[in-house]
Amino acid sequence: MITTGVAVIGFGTVGAGVVRLLLEDGARLAEATGCRLVLKYVCDIDLKRKRSVAVPPELLTDNVERVLADKGVGVAVETVGGTTFAVDLMKRLLAARKDVVTANKAALAKCGAALFAAARAAGRSISFEASVAAGIPIIRAIRDGLLANRISAITGILNGTCNYILTQMSCTGALYEDALAEAQAKGYAEADPALDVGGEDARHKLAILAGLGFGANINLEDVYVEGIAGLQPADIAYGAQVGYVLKLLAIGRCAGGAMSLRVHPTFVPAGSPLATVSGVNNAVLVTGHAVGDTFYVGPGAGEMPTASSIVADLVDAAMGRARVTFESIAWLAGRARALSVLPMSDIRTRYYLRFDVLDKPGVLGSIAGALGRHDISVASVLQHEPARPDSVPLVITTHRAREGNVAHALDEIRRLPIVNGPAVRIRMLAGNGEGEE
Amino acid sequence: MITTGVAVIGFGTVGAGVVRLLLEDGARLAEATGCRLVLKYVCDIDLKRKRSVAVPPELLTDNVERVLADKGVGVAVETVGGTTFAVDLMKRLLAARKDVVTANKAALAKCGAALFAAARAAGRSISFEASVAAGIPIIRAIRDGLLANRISAITGILNGTCNYILTQMSCTGALYEDALAEAQAKGYAEADPALDVGGEDARHKLAILAGLGFGANINLEDVYVEGIAGLQPADIAYGAQVGYVLKLLAIGRCAGGAMSLRVHPTFVPAGSPLATVSGVNNAVLVTGHAVGDTFYVGPGAGEMPTASSIVADLVDAAMGRARVTFESIAWLAGRARALSVLPMSDIRTRYYLRFDVLDKPGVLGSIAGALGRHDISVASVLQHEPARPDSVPLVITTHRAREGNVAHALDEIRRLPIVNGPAVRIRMLAGNGEGEE
Repeated sequence: MITTGVAVIGFGTVGAGVVRLLLEDGARLAEATGCRLVLKYVCDIDLKRKRSVAVPPELLTDNVERVLADKGVGVAVETVGGTTFAVDLMKRLLAARKDVVTANKAALAKCGAALFAAARAAGRSISFEASVAAGIPIIRAIRDGLLANRISAITGILNGTCNYILTQMSCTGALYEDALAEAQAKGYAEADPALDVGGEDARHKLAILAGLGFGANINLEDVYVEGIAGLQPADIAYGAQVGYVLKLLAIGRCAGGAMSLRVHPTFVPAGSPLATVSGVNNAVLVTGHAVGDTFYVGPGAGEMPTASSIVADLVDAAMGRARVTFESIAWLAGRARALSVLPMSDIRTRYYLRFDVLDKPGVLGSIAGALGRHDISVASVLQHEPARPDSVPLVITTHRAREGNVAHALDEIRRLPIVNGPAVRIRMLAGNGEGEE
Repeated sequence: MITTGVAVIGFGTVGAGVVRLLLEDGARLAEATGCRLVLKYVCDIDLKRKRSVAVPPELLTDNVERVLADKGVGVAVETVGGTTFAVDLMKRLLAARKDVVTANKAALAKCGAALFAAARAAGRSISFEASVAAGIPIIRAIRDGLLANRISAITGILNGTCNYILTQMSCTGALYEDALAEAQAKGYAEADPALDVGGEDARHKLAILAGLGFGANINLEDVYVEGIAGLQPADIAYGAQVGYVLKLLAIGRCAGGAMSLRVHPTFVPAGSPLATVSGVNNAVLVTGHAVGDTFYVGPGAGEMPTASSIVADLVDAAMGRARVTFESIAWLAGRARALSVLPMSDIRTRYYLRFDVLDKPGVLGSIAGALGRHDISVASVLQHEPARPDSVPLVITTHRAREGNVAHALDEIRRLPIVNGPAVRIRMLAGNGEGEE
């Protein structure tokens, strides 16, 4: 039986879940995995706040130096969060020859390469299953299960808050603001929801999955991001009429030595498995050259789902598997591939466009003509009998077109006298992720 | 860089896929994983048959003794199949101190404990990601990713042939025989489809998943099995009218030290993720106490999806992770839990019942009365205006009831003079797998 001392640093919601699993399931875990994880420290600057789990007082400390100095701690869980203290702490833990387990997506997305280098320098590992899609073992799927594949596409619903809001808007026709307020009332959205609804959280997670799947270091600035704020129920309803469901997708593609990386609202065909993922769930569709499409769904947040993945990583570290993985897999071991990044203007995808036009002869011809001049081919047109002659919604979906061309065409159309204001432009997923570009 | 000699024994479809990946992607795999897999032998009794991949002639052999004697072979792939020669071969390979990778579900389901013991005795490992759901890394998900959980439910669509046939019957109203013939014409069903349509293949796979997930050795005889032969389009249509989709499900449950294990046609609520899995895909829904539900979908058969999982196992063996896993995880390491098995008659689930009745007063009362006397509560009734007075279909769905009670009630009803012949009885899934029993 392997016995390993564990410290949990950061006693918030997720930290409490980890502590609960270690205390309540420790004996069963030891029997099931051959690894006894002995909780030695629960460390937080605030030890007074009430938690959901009772911890023997002798394990509590507000002094992280005690953890760093204790050679009996083999693995430390970092659940502090953020990219300043937490990153520095992880480096110090590694230097003190402790394996690190973290759920900190921001730290990995922004400082991953430096953290991995610190782990290698110390001969230790960093494990981060919980950093993406909480309870879904998607890191293991891509890193271990699918490693025989050239991964060409990773398409994910990686933010449960956004998926909840969009699901509510789709099902009830609610306004964005009302769906957000409901998500906040249910605890699915933070008081300050900017990181979620702005797409930044999904961006961090895509950077991690793409790094692992494509084997390249990702600059976060190379990941295009557009959030869900301001999306209108009308577009969700029109999309449904032509067979599409609106999701915030994180899309990574890799072909011919070039990646494209983007997070934005996307119309997904109703027949795609991604369209069926509702509420706060997360999902990832991975395409590999040998396996084809595999699809993973599960809880993308929450105390116990996140703790489930952290404890899996703790066992992996205690067993010694984490270090073997870290030394072997190219991206972790410092052998990142050099891949170029396709500029957003060169992306080719499908588009949903909604114009607000006047009810006059020649309107459709002018707009279709402008699209055609920019090499944009119309796939479908939706225009109902007008209710008001001065404001008629005209919905057009396109075949694959170059993003830059679409931008130019929309600029041109916006200046037409028959059009009121700028068009709504929402990208569409073609098929289930394969061959989108 | 780790370098490991590999032998592929059994040069059929799957063996050819493995050979193709090793030959075509060997250099990339070495770079990506830090493990160079050197193909040393491709062994088969028939070397003349045309294959889909060209192998350097010096690698081909029909003499397995050469593989066994070569200390340069670190890992052997068994893709011979069957439970006689293949099981003996795996034991000899292990005794010759080679790690083994296999896709042989029948061998694992019937002789798993003996094979694991042989691996332990030799200080080696057996890996079998490809044995269940081919390309989906479901073994790793349960074994590694979800190991912090007490797994209470595993619910799978584990046979692509059956799922294809049922999908066709649902979509086109085809007869079972016609859908089977179409599956055979497309290469999705064998000329002798008995193992697939009889449920035996899914039974083997459930035994493996339940063994791993619940940590117990499974006697195959304890897994109830009922296939899809003879299912009628009428029942699929009536099921659809009350909101259910028919699937062949493999269902494992574990609670309070007792398991229930069964493979049978099952009506799945249209809102369940399992209902959306169509065609030859496989899917598994796993429920754990910490993570909740996670769901996995992907190709359940085929040359390259199966090879994808076998090569992942080869890398795992070459890295040394496979052996660490094998020594640690209780079920593999010989520390199986002693769990009892609930007899089928004690299962509690929901039922779809179709009676062929006469159009006479008192019919519904007689049937409902008989159900009630056996503690079976009616959830819904579907009876259309009769087309023929001597043969009226009456469809009843029940709340959860004991299987034994349902059998007794159906026996009693069958003897009523107002009923033509035995009822159709199809079990239903309550919810998404949680709390079904």
